[in-house]
Amino acid sequence: MFQSKLRSETLKGVVDVVSTLIDEAKFVIDANGVSLKAVDPAHVAMIDLHLDKAAFEQFSANDTELGLDLDKLRDVLRLSKSGDLIEMRQDEERNRLVISVGNITRRMNLVSTEGMSDPKVPNITLPAKLSVNIEELQRGIKAAESISDHISLNANPDGFELISEGDTDLVSLKLPKDLLVSLDCKDPVRSLYPMDYFSNLIRAIPAGTVLSINIGNDLPVRLDFEIAGGKGKVKYLLAPRIEND
Amino acid sequence: MFQSKLRSETLKGVVDVVSTLIDEAKFVIDANGVSLKAVDPAHVAMIDLHLDKAAFEQFSANDTELGLDLDKLRDVLRLSKSGDLIEMRQDEERNRLVISVGNITRRMNLVSTEGMSDPKVPNITLPAKLSVNIEELQRGIKAAESISDHISLNANPDGFELISEGDTDLVSLKLPKDLLVSLDCKDPVRSLYPMDYFSNLIRAIPAGTVLSINIGNDLPVRLDFEIAGGKGKVKYLLAPRIEND
Amino acid sequence: MFQSKLRSETLKGVVDVVSTLIDEAKFVIDANGVSLKAVDPAHVAMIDLHLDKAAFEQFSANDTELGLDLDKLRDVLRLSKSGDLIEMRQDEERNRLVISVGNITRRMNLVSTEGMSDPKVPNITLPAKLSVNIEELQRGIKAAESISDHISLNANPDGFELISEGDTDLVSLKLPKDLLVSLDCKDPVRSLYPMDYFSNLIRAIPAGTVLSINIGNDLPVRLDFEIAGGKGKVKYLLAPRIEND
Repeated sequence: MFQSKLRSETLKGVVDVVSTLIDEAKFVIDANGVSLKAVDPAHVAMIDLHLDKAAFEQFSANDTELGLDLDKLRDVLRLSKSGDLIEMRQDEERNRLVISVGNITRRMNLVSTEGMSDPKVPNITLPAKLSVNIEELQRGIKAAESISDHISLNANPDGFELISEGDTDLVSLKLPKDLLVSLDCKDPVRSLYPMDYFSNLIRAIPAGTVLSINIGNDLPVRLDFEIAGGKGKVKYLLAPRIEND
Repeated sequence: MFQSKLRSETLKGVVDVVSTLIDEAKFVIDANGVSLKAVDPAHVAMIDLHLDKAAFEQFSANDTELGLDLDKLRDVLRLSKSGDLIEMRQDEERNRLVISVGNITRRMNLVSTEGMSDPKVPNITLPAKLSVNIEELQRGIKAAESISDHISLNANPDGFELISEGDTDLVSLKLPKDLLVSLDCKDPVRSLYPMDYFSNLIRAIPAGTVLSINIGNDLPVRLDFEIAGGKGKVKYLLAPRIEND
Repeated sequence: MFQSKLRSETLKGVVDVVSTLIDEAKFVIDANGVSLKAVDPAHVAMIDLHLDKAAFEQFSANDTELGLDLDKLRDVLRLSKSGDLIEMRQDEERNRLVISVGNITRRMNLVSTEGMSDPKVPNITLPAKLSVNIEELQRGIKAAESISDHISLNANPDGFELISEGDTDLVSLKLPKDLLVSLDCKDPVRSLYPMDYFSNLIRAIPAGTVLSINIGNDLPVRLDFEIAGGKGKVKYLLAPRIEND
């Protein structure tokens, strides 16, 4: 059983982030809130999202699962503006979700969650950690996207740097220590990641968010951030591209 | 003979509505104003529009006909902003229309009205009648468009409902009696219409308009509304799609 | 050697105008500023642009040349908003330009200037001269573009007129003497030009600019205007299309 009301922007925050990886998602629901774990089809990135019941205006649920098409949720979001209440109700008998925004009701069949895996999100320890306001990265990402398919994240005791290097051009975004929210890095580290995964995620994170970045040398990057005004959180892991020299 | 000045938004109101059905139109002009009757090429919908001479800032005409390409009128509208005066003058000798906006003059050949029919708009009596602010429908139409090629209009003594139902999804916009401007319905009625005709018209009607809807069971719908601040009116008939169960 | 800082909108003004003709440009730099002369690949138009060192917030240079891809400069402009400072530094050793906007640095290889000609911009004397606020032309150009591939510029002692004439339609923008900034014309003159060159330039010139137009009968048109708040200037020559009757 699942019946809830939430603000349009809360649902938007979830859909924007999750749809950078997958088209259909399995939301696992219990009395405490909603969770989602997913890997993209190419197994390059992994997301672990939790939305506490406090993120909802109204929430009542028993253990259940909802397989949802994220594009359809996006359709519903288009009908609402920030601040609007969205009501969701599981119709267990007919295996549907019923969503209402104002006078409009949308009923959608649930998608089967059978093929959807329950990835185990590993607990990797990474040598360097920093946190930064997402706006600092968003402008740099825009500059870097046209240069190369890869982006390298670099940290050292003085700051953080994103570098995208193509055959003839290079874009670098340098954030010295004083432009970061925090920096905990003893030795310089550097890893290379696929541009599209990284930039799609950075663009999907709402302004005002502090992003925590854990990196190492040729290791996955772990990105952590809060959603729903602190009443939800996201952990995102992205595999490195190993450079062949 | 036809010589007139009218506000840009008045011409826009006419072009937006008429171009949902046809690309070229025959405007029939007399000393009282401008009229247009048209059927779309598939003979699914019919429009009967009248613009009184009072809708013009200046109007002088004898009986005449103008065959106009609506896309070219739209080009002219793009040059003007709301409130701008548009001057139109028929050049009978050369079979042209001369349009001026500020310092810009556009001269266009008239299109032949020979092939254009003069449809007789039937006077159907329909059992249910209601009227509603167009804004109430416009958000619902947006939600319904992606679901199905059809939309059903439903009225009963308690209110009005638009339903679009696809294989897996359904969108419904429910307007109870108190959200309507008026409702006159004794027995429940329901008819199904092609989505594109209905939604294109609903989108073309300017905000602030009260739309009058006359419906029955598997009968055409008749939509009536005013344009040009009440100095013009539109009657629109749309044929039903008969459901085969 | 070349090292400078300039406002984003100054660079934008140069890129917008020059890229109507060419994709890659040779900027010739000396202690007084930056110059550029170019002909488009079809040899229909010619541009002669000079940006004084006073147009820069900071400027230090010896004689040098920079071959630049204008699309890449446009990428850099997208990262900045009006008022932002853009820093440019030639890296002579590696034959690169290094551009910084805030924390973002873009390094780009210079393009070879070997194939790029140094056109001699002729000094043609033309019988009629007028000047006009660019906004007066921009709306008319929009109206004229869809009508024909050509545009005729006409001047007489009473005013200036742009005419675009197609098979069935004609657009005219008439600017009587009192809507011009100045008019010096004894006998009527008329020349025909390719629409795309003329309209692309007119659209690229920023609002607030006074455009000086020198024309004759079936002769090139010379357009002069200031950029960078008077600290730069552009001379533009466009060859006529000779009408065959």
